[in-house]
Amino acid sequence: MRAVVMFAPGDIRVEEREDPAVVEPTDAIIRLAATCICGSDLWPYRGDDDVDHTPMGHEYVGVVTEIGHDVKTLQVGDFVVGSFFASDNTCEICQAGYQSRCIHAYPMGALGTQAEYARVPFADGTLVATPGMPDADLVPSLLAASDVLGTGWFAAVAAEAGPGKTVAVVGDGAVGLLGVLAARQLGAERIIAMSRHVDRQALAREFGATDIVEERGDAGVARIKELTGGYGAHSVIEAVGTQESMMQAIRATRAGGHIGYVGVSHDVSLDGLELFFSGVHLHGGPAPVRRFLPELIQLIWDRRIDPGKVFDLTLPIEDAAEGYRAMNERRATKVLLTV
Amino acid sequence: MRAVVMFAPGDIRVEEREDPAVVEPTDAIIRLAATCICGSDLWPYRGDDDVDHTPMGHEYVGVVTEIGHDVKTLQVGDFVVGSFFASDNTCEICQAGYQSRCIHAYPMGALGTQAEYARVPFADGTLVATPGMPDADLVPSLLAASDVLGTGWFAAVAAEAGPGKTVAVVGDGAVGLLGVLAARQLGAERIIAMSRHVDRQALAREFGATDIVEERGDAGVARIKELTGGYGAHSVIEAVGTQESMMQAIRATRAGGHIGYVGVSHDVSLDGLELFFSGVHLHGGPAPVRRFLPELIQLIWDRRIDPGKVFDLTLPIEDAAEGYRAMNERRATKVLLTV
Repeated sequence: MRAVVMFAPGDIRVEEREDPAVVEPTDAIIRLAATCICGSDLWPYRGDDDVDHTPMGHEYVGVVTEIGHDVKTLQVGDFVVGSFFASDNTCEICQAGYQSRCIHAYPMGALGTQAEYARVPFADGTLVATPGMPDADLVPSLLAASDVLGTGWFAAVAAEAGPGKTVAVVGDGAVGLLGVLAARQLGAERIIAMSRHVDRQALAREFGATDIVEERGDAGVARIKELTGGYGAHSVIEAVGTQESMMQAIRATRAGGHIGYVGVSHDVSLDGLELFFSGVHLHGGPAPVRRFLPELIQLIWDRRIDPGKVFDLTLPIEDAAEGYRAMNERRATKVLLTV
Repeated sequence: MRAVVMFAPGDIRVEEREDPAVVEPTDAIIRLAATCICGSDLWPYRGDDDVDHTPMGHEYVGVVTEIGHDVKTLQVGDFVVGSFFASDNTCEICQAGYQSRCIHAYPMGALGTQAEYARVPFADGTLVATPGMPDADLVPSLLAASDVLGTGWFAAVAAEAGPGKTVAVVGDGAVGLLGVLAARQLGAERIIAMSRHVDRQALAREFGATDIVEERGDAGVARIKELTGGYGAHSVIEAVGTQESMMQAIRATRAGGHIGYVGVSHDVSLDGLELFFSGVHLHGGPAPVRRFLPELIQLIWDRRIDPGKVFDLTLPIEDAAEGYRAMNERRATKVLLTV
């Protein structure tokens, strides 16, 4: 099969690799309908994370082509969406809704889903079948549910976005934008998107942002306080993962408020005393997308949300290298790869 | 009046100071019935925090002797308990239950309550009157409500201790021990006190601990995992404030679990990536004791809890220096000073 491999930072190639096969009786094999490039794929692309001939990708939707003999809830031919972490969905951690930290959690990125086929471990616990074969125009939104939507949604839930709340969103990538969408769906009263890119501001407004703040760092924090009677936001979504973005999130949150942080931390160090006196609630990590998939699939199926709009560039998988370049140069917010 | 002053690290003296007077119309003056020494007073005593001829103390119960003309809910003669932070109790932060981070929050430690009298700012928002004059044997417990009980209680609430939960408590000082009591009152199923001091283990058991873990650091974490099916505790109370205790708390908590941290942070730095992948909820800071005072006073008044048991040494205020020595040398858990 054809698959995307990052040979080294900045060096993306599409190679022939062996088709995956069922290894464990709980595995399923899927034929990808679409896949995509994640903001987190840019860390190794820029040389900030190690990479060496690494198969890429962890987001996926597709059709089941084979199942192991212990798979009970899925059939060959089902159209499925899965999380970027495989999970058994039966352990105490999963049952509490933290499937991405399942005691058997397996990162799909280690298998690579920017490919024609993928092996999905713990298929019963990882995959959710759609109500039927989706119309083609629903595929991008279903793909988004696999990570960026699920992650933005988790961030909004972790930040306790809801009625009467003012929510600030740090980060205007696909996750931040879908955090805006999630906050709106969860009933937030006011949603402040922090962005200095006109096209992303427009999509943020379309997804439900009521205010835009262009300032960053201390100036951004000051602006959030100004917009919230001096108190800070009730809820802040952090969707970047840098020291600056984390401190911006913590300082923009009022005492007793909630931060949902989902940007994978890079060289972040939190000062204990500042955190102590901030009085905020801090919760985040790799999103337990599986928890939200049934609800998100239904919202998409019913055409009540359209998260697929974050894909502003679609390329055949053969042109993956151009997709990485476009995202890295911020010419694209999120790139969908057709398989 | 007589008052405790820390001249320099290790140098505690009882001096004559001017009696406090009403400064703002929202002030009250109280005659202390009892006061005490806090674990946090030991940081400057040991030279870990700056100190220079500093009046000491922030815990207090007593009788109102004078009120400013804007004080509406209290009368001269009322017996009152107050938080270690004065608060207006009307701003949005207070109304959300975070009075210690009130926009007008004022640390009582800056005024010093290890003294015969104290001025209490925002008296209406800070003080809660007891149902009547307390019996003498209730005074230690009411004094505990002012900080250590309120702080342990907040930690248990922040850690979401409750029915069906396993709660681990890091720190066997007065706050940790009262965190055990709070977890029990909140209905926790299992409470693991981490302590290697026999006398404190005994009090922890009396307050409701079901298990004792003597190991610390990685060994302590391993023991907590062993006791919880490999998952970690649902809820962890952190009541120390060091790097080791914070990491012990984070690592002992299962993914999706909750940490309530109330030890004032000293040289703590949290690695963003470890925190990210821990998947825990982190919440803490200076306890909003005022939120809990009405409930705690009633529990004490009805003799349903006896937090005053944490005081294992009572001295007249003139012997404050010996009280500090005893706590610093861990000969006493918590010292009550009679005034």
